Parts: sequence; C-alpha cells; structure tokens
Amino acid sequence: MQTLRVELGERAYPIHIGERLLSDARLVTPHLDLPKVAIVTNTTVAALYLQQLSEALRAQGVEVISIVLEDGERYKDWATLNLIYDALLERHCDRKTTLIALGGGVVGDLAGFAAATYMRGIPFIQIPTTLLAQVDSSIGGKTGINHPLGKNMIGAFYQPRLVLADTTVLASLPPRELSAGLAEVIKHGLIRDDGFVAWLEQNVEKLLACDAQALAHAVRRCCEIKAAVVAEDERETGVRALLNFGHTFGHAIESGLGYGKWLHGEAVAAGMVMAADLSRRMGFIAQTDLDRVVALLKRARLPTAPPDIAPARMLELMALDKKTEGGKLRFVLLDRIGAASIRAEVPAGLLQQALAISAG
Amino acid sequence: MQTLRVELGERAYPIHIGERLLSDARLVTPHLDLPKVAIVTNTTVAALYLQQLSEALRAQGVEVISIVLEDGERYKDWATLNLIYDALLERHCDRKTTLIALGGGVVGDLAGFAAATYMRGIPFIQIPTTLLAQVDSSIGGKTGINHPLGKNMIGAFYQPRLVLADTTVLASLPPRELSAGLAEVIKHGLIRDDGFVAWLEQNVEKLLACDAQALAHAVRRCCEIKAAVVAEDERETGVRALLNFGHTFGHAIESGLGYGKWLHGEAVAAGMVMAADLSRRMGFIAQTDLDRVVALLKRARLPTAPPDIAPARMLELMALDKKTEGGKLRFVLLDRIGAASIRAEVPAGLLQQALAISAG
Repeated sequence: MQTLRVELGERAYPIHIGERLLSDARLVTPHLDLPKVAIVTNTTVAALYLQQLSEALRAQGVEVISIVLEDGERYKDWATLNLIYDALLERHCDRKTTLIALGGGVVGDLAGFAAATYMRGIPFIQIPTTLLAQVDSSIGGKTGINHPLGKNMIGAFYQPRLVLADTTVLASLPPRELSAGLAEVIKHGLIRDDGFVAWLEQNVEKLLACDAQALAHAVRRCCEIKAAVVAEDERETGVRALLNFGHTFGHAIESGLGYGKWLHGEAVAAGMVMAADLSRRMGFIAQTDLDRVVALLKRARLPTAPPDIAPARMLELMALDKKTEGGKLRFVLLDRIGAASIRAEVPAGLLQQALAISAG
Repeated sequence: MQTLRVELGERAYPIHIGERLLSDARLVTPHLDLPKVAIVTNTTVAALYLQQLSEALRAQGVEVISIVLEDGERYKDWATLNLIYDALLERHCDRKTTLIALGGGVVGDLAGFAAATYMRGIPFIQIPTTLLAQVDSSIGGKTGINHPLGKNMIGAFYQPRLVLADTTVLASLPPRELSAGLAEVIKHGLIRDDGFVAWLEQNVEKLLACDAQALAHAVRRCCEIKAAVVAEDERETGVRALLNFGHTFGHAIESGLGYGKWLHGEAVAAGMVMAADLSRRMGFIAQTDLDRVVALLKRARLPTAPPDIAPARMLELMALDKKTEGGKLRFVLLDRIGAASIRAEVPAGLLQQALAISAG
C-alpha cells in the first residue's frame, strides 16, 4: 500500500492506494467520529463489494447502514439526492455519522454533496471503485449533481477525510468503463507531465489488460498530480482549472446527447481532441502533437470525434458551462504535450472552424 | 453608520449597521467580482424595497436581476430553491455573479444555500430586513432549507462577503415580526450578557415602539455577541451551540405545528421558557430567574408556553434535531441569567416533567 497526502491545512487527508484494501476496515475506523457509517453505493457495485465492505466494518464494531441507488449518470439529480437525505433521516443519522461513497464518479459526486449538505456537513470518506474515480473524481472535494440546463451546476467543494483506492476492484470493470477512466489518466499527462504521456504510450495496452503493476503506477501518478494541483488551488481560482482540459467541450457533448448516452470519460476524450485541435489552430501546438493525442486516445479505445451535434447547439451548451466569467467562454488549451494554459481570447472564427470540422 | 467585523481569517467580513443604508450602493459595489447581481427577495419585501435597492445599484453601473419568491417559512424548501437555480441559469449568471439576499431569515437561508451550491459557490451578500435577520440569521453563515422530517436539515456553512443592516427598514415590520425578532435579541442576552438583559428590561417598550436609538443599540449589541461567538467557533463544534438556546424545543414546536403557523421567534420564545424551566428543575437557576425570563418575553409580546403538542410527540420531534450526537439529546441550559452551557446528562424524568407541565 502506498499513501499520498492532499495538503489542505486543517482539511488535509490521506489517499491510500493498493490491493485488497476494501476488506481492511482498520484503514477506515481511525477516521470515524462515532462507529456508525452510511454507505452510499449503486446496484451494480453493491452486488460486487457492499457485503465485503460492510462485514469488514461490522467486524470492527461499526454500525453500518447502506443506501443503494440506481446505476447511471442520469440519476445524478435532485430526486436521487433526496433519497439519500430521506434514508439518513429515517435511520436517525446525525452529525457524527460518517457517509462513505462506494462506487464511481456518480456515486462519489452524489454522496459527497449529500455529506456536504446533510445537517450542514457530516464526515465523508471516498472508496472509489472505477478507474475514473480513483484517478480523478474522488480527489479534491468537487461534489454535485446535474441540472437539466447543465452538468454539475449544483454542488459544493467538500473534502473527504480519506480516499481508499483499492486497485484490485478495477479488474471487475467493464472494458468501456476502463477506457473511460483512461481518458482522465491521459488528461493528467497532457496538461502536466510529458514523461507520463510517454509512459502511457508505452503501456496503454497493459492498462487495458488490467496489469496490476501498470494500473498501480498510473493511479499513483494521477493522484500525485491531482493532489498537488488541488493543494495549490482548492477552489479553482487558478491552476486547478487546467484539470478541466477537454471538459468544456465534453460537458456540452454529454448535455447535448442527454446524460448517460456517452460515459463522461468518452465525452472528455472527444473534448480533448477538440481542445487540442483548437490549440493547433491557435498555433500553440503542431499537427504532430495533435496526431499524438488522437493516436493515444484511439489506442485507449476512446472516441476521438464528437457525436453529431450542430456547432450552434454546441456553442449554446458551452455558454452554460460553469467556466464562463462575465459571460465570456474560457478554454484550457495545450501549450505543448505536458503543459496547458487558460485562454479567454479565442477568435470566434477559429472556434467555429474547430466545431464545424470536428463535428463533420 | 457603525461597522463590526466577523473575524474569520480569509472569510472575514464587515457588518454595517445604520440608517438609510439601502440606497447607498457604494457600500455594496466594492464587494462584487463583476458588476452583476441577482437579488433574491419575497413578494412582501419586493413591494417595499426592491426598487430602491435596484435603482441604487443600477446608478452605480451594476446589472441587476431580481428573483421574487413567495413569502413564508413553508416556502423554505427544495421547490423554491430550484426556482432560484432555474432563474440563475436562465439569466446566464456565472461564478462571478453576486447573489444578494434582501429579506428576513427565510430569504437569507434560502438565498445563502443557493449561493453556497450554485456552481459550487458564488459571492453572497446579506441585506436583512427583519429584526430577527439583522440580529441573528444574517450573521455567521448558516444557510439551508427544511426537510419534511426536520427544520434546516439540508444546508451549508457559507459566509457572506458583507452584511448590511439598515435599521430604517425595521419601522415597516408588522408588530408580530418585531416581537419575533426580540426573542432572538433576548436570547443573546440570556446566554452571554446579563448587563444586556438588564438593559432590555429597561428598554423593551422602546424597542416595540421602534425607537431608532434603542433599535440601533440592540442590533449592534447582538451583532457583537454573535460575531464574537461565530469567530470563535464557525462550524459549531463548541461554544456556537449556545446560540441554539431554546431552539431544540422551538424547532420541535415549529415542526409539530407545521412550518409557518408560529413564527420562528415565537417558537424560540416558548422554547426558551421550556429550557429555562428545565434549567430550574436541574437546579442550575432559581424560580426568580425563570420568572424574569418569562416576564421579559411577555413584555416583548411573545408566547411563554408551547402550543398543545403531546410530550411524546415533542420528544419524537426533538430526537430528529441536528443537535443530537450518537442519538443522544443535548440541551443548552442556563447556568444563570447571562450564561449558558451544553448539557447532555438530563434525566428523562425531569425532561418529561418539563414537557408535560409546559404543555399543560
């Protein structure tokens, strides 16, 4: 097991990464205020891991309640959030009950927002079970739900007390979910670490084959990058925005298709190609750089072009993105492979071209 | 104008108290990220003050959107919160838009929670227009909504950037609202400042008559007390819980009657009598102290006994209160007039007596 720390002063917390951590409840108990937890998960994950986690906790004397949600991004909404509140109230959970998210990004976002807002905030632990959640969404305290007019529009920054990334569970992921997670893995390399991009170009097939050593390395490197960025800028007033590379386009794709048609990582993959293409049109990177991005995503079995959404509709959806400031669109663009910047001054003509050609 | 500060490090903010502040937009503009605000208010307050505030802001070049809600505690719910989100999204408000709460406690709690959770948090300003909001709810960052199973069960700690307490507006308050505000004024004295209680015993009729000087003194003293308590314990892990004096009983009364039947301050007044009565039964204060509490609340034209709710039902409702820990009820009880403590060890028999006799 390896342990990293997200350095956030009084909100600092550890990330444990390793094999078979799920059944070691002694990693969890030191972080509880009282020996009572509510595990939020979904039907798919519950069938695989809920019993294992619950029994390990109960063996340590912890009272365990479980709240099992439907599986899918389309359930990341008010109605599901209220199911969590109702269950917590009906089971008399108070401010000393710890909420545990056991699942992927949707479960983590929903459960995290419930923890942030139930009785104005209760203790929270992330046990991510997808690659995407282990390398990205479980770290950094972003929580929230979708609104019909935009993704993650309602939410809070709320840090967990612990992230437990058990790499053993990744073996049970469907191939499509594994690839979706690789989109965020590749993102971390593209914006921050060209050496890691080179490593990924060497090892992407090993990752797709769930090679334990390769997965452990990828998860650890992504957690290191994300923890450092979050420690520097918890509330995304600066450098943290770079983690949104591909996401303005990606969110518009998800919203335009209807949540859940494409996985988040798939939309981000296509979004990263669009952002890289725009970076090339702006003259920041060369065609060969763009080709490398596309080739790596293709090898990870990810889409490299957006679905058929009209450019005008894409623009409309992007204008609703949280990352506008004073109504102005801002883009994360590549300076080179391994470095990115926020750019507000993108000529409308170039953006139109990127949208039109990519959608063609 | 007098200015206090709530000392919360990077989240510190000023409270301006004085007459005719509502039309001085230059007090507001230095706290905006961009010159765009969304004013959240209700139909009653909008008719009195929305135009005045909007025009003052527009004269300073600020774009103003207004969101007018129905008036009443029963609207402090999911449905109304979603009306705010919808309006913010439809009007393309982004993370640089400042949300202003113009109204009483319900508007402040709702608007504050919307500001805390819209796009994971946008700038927020409180302009309280009731006595209760000026002396209590606008300060300290508690925001939230009610759940059918309990008051303020869903919420967040989220500090405003500025509180603007214009004492001129208090003259337009209905007498019942003014009295309800006095309940929280008296509470601040009872838990923290016997000298202020003595001053209130001298001046309660002046306050009821809206004497400007007396109101200004009462608002300032309460803000001083509350600001000091909040600075010491922002997230209510200790001393801040003393501000809940009367509230465990009071919330049960509000919830038992259905939100909005009694005003919050009225329920707190009856709740403070019950808590003082329990303090006497526990031997912490004398009968004469209890008589002083009852007499002062009566002179402020507040209820001093709970409505007809069965003791068993009161206990059930109190068990749902946020202030339980590990399922155990905790009470704020008086040590003397001007000092209070948290007490977890209240014999069930004494509590039953207090509930039964008070309800008789």
